[in-house]
Amino acid sequence: MNVLIVFAHPEPRSLNGSLKDFAVQRLRRAGHAVQVSDLYAMNWKATVDADDNLATTPGARFNPSMDSRQAYANGTQRGDIAREQEKLRWADAVILQFPLWWFSMPAILKGWVERVYAYGFAYGVGEHSDSHWGDRYGEGMLAGKRAMLVVTTGGWASHYAPRGINGPIDDILFPIQHGLLYYPGFDVLPPHVIYRTSRIDEAAFAQACEALGQRLDTLWTTDPIPFRKQNAGDYLIPALTLRPELAPGRSGFGIHVDHDDVDHRSRSPRDSQNTTR
Amino acid sequence: MNVLIVFAHPEPRSLNGSLKDFAVQRLRRAGHAVQVSDLYAMNWKATVDADDNLATTPGARFNPSMDSRQAYANGTQRGDIAREQEKLRWADAVILQFPLWWFSMPAILKGWVERVYAYGFAYGVGEHSDSHWGDRYGEGMLAGKRAMLVVTTGGWASHYAPRGINGPIDDILFPIQHGLLYYPGFDVLPPHVIYRTSRIDEAAFAQACEALGQRLDTLWTTDPIPFRKQNAGDYLIPALTLRPELAPGRSGFGIHVDHDDVDHRSRSPRDSQNTTR
Repeated sequence: MNVLIVFAHPEPRSLNGSLKDFAVQRLRRAGHAVQVSDLYAMNWKATVDADDNLATTPGARFNPSMDSRQAYANGTQRGDIAREQEKLRWADAVILQFPLWWFSMPAILKGWVERVYAYGFAYGVGEHSDSHWGDRYGEGMLAGKRAMLVVTTGGWASHYAPRGINGPIDDILFPIQHGLLYYPGFDVLPPHVIYRTSRIDEAAFAQACEALGQRLDTLWTTDPIPFRKQNAGDYLIPALTLRPELAPGRSGFGIHVDHDDVDHRSRSPRDSQNTTR
Repeated sequence: MNVLIVFAHPEPRSLNGSLKDFAVQRLRRAGHAVQVSDLYAMNWKATVDADDNLATTPGARFNPSMDSRQAYANGTQRGDIAREQEKLRWADAVILQFPLWWFSMPAILKGWVERVYAYGFAYGVGEHSDSHWGDRYGEGMLAGKRAMLVVTTGGWASHYAPRGINGPIDDILFPIQHGLLYYPGFDVLPPHVIYRTSRIDEAAFAQACEALGQRLDTLWTTDPIPFRKQNAGDYLIPALTLRPELAPGRSGFGIHVDHDDVDHRSRSPRDSQNTTR
């Protein structure tokens, strides 16, 4: 299989750099083809601007979406953008690896998303009607591919626990996992998070590699997070609110995960025969 | 009062640009001093790297936190970083204005935070002990100042409603409002969000200005979001989980807002006399 690692740390000799090198080796030894977009090493341009369209009209009012649409449709995108899109088409699985900086991805990676996720490629795809609000959230150009986050934090696991002061890690990552990955179609695997990175000695590093290695070995078999598909009946269109009979009375990020689906899939065949649901 | 607007849109003739111009005028007419950090116009460097420290050792391993700490302490930060910190010191209120791109702030603004929020300035401040885990979440260098987000979205309000497919807007903005603004000490006002920006004609623009104007006129009197202070007794230290007796059995971003405090403050003096709480 083909794996793309998009890597966002400025120092190759960091924990993140070492884990990335380990991942490349582990995947290649298992027979996979690996490409790495090392954004700092590539000197990736982080900001969206009119220069992203090689056919832009000087002095014209710049509309980021419309410019992106035109450049993508006409093949006038800057080469760096087109090359990253080609890597995404090539990949069967994509890993975004980054340190959590201020509760989100580093700016350089956010800028990779903003520029590579063109109109017509990652959004603005498919029919817009009263029953189908674009190919997104479970459909789209990247459907059939898998994605996973590999994230490091300086803070402790308890700080990101369900009642931790920073907020639960699953909620902090929701705008990325649901909004950036599930949106254009990826099946999103549970994230791999490494906490309290300032306290990692050699033994802890070996453990961190082993844990990451397990996740890489099961990249093709791990169940994705069962986010709800937008156009499969769970949402009212065009309001795009969850139907009142689903997760009744609840709100928040969690209702967009179909927990019944998890229960269902984690049941063994014999369990299934014993249930009347 | 002194107001800093940090503005992140590439096109001055956009809706965002027009609203920013309106805000500057409205605030100045009310007698306030206004500075604008127009990040695109400033060609703001979005990525953290070793060049941010003018005294960096060539070839040394780059540790973003430790380098930032050293540069801040020794006065060897790049000038662009030091100038933005000076604006933050000057400001009584800070407005971050941006279009919501992929469920977060544009990369250029994220990069402003990453670079301007130095170790010793916005984090790594104050005593670390068993009863006080640094001056953060309600304490810090920016305590006593107010902050507010002004955000535009292409999506509809219902898509960001409590049961909307994108997730509730308050949850999407939590890592910014709680994690970036409350963390170094700001009092954070409720956000001002303008939805469905592609459908804004002249009449709707006038309404949008009027609504924003109201928020600017009440910048000094609006109650901040009552986030819970880290070091005032609500959290177990060092686990930093909310004490079990507060918001019992609940989890998620919402528990870090002290809703009782809101109820308390929204009560009139007479109501208060009538309650036994």
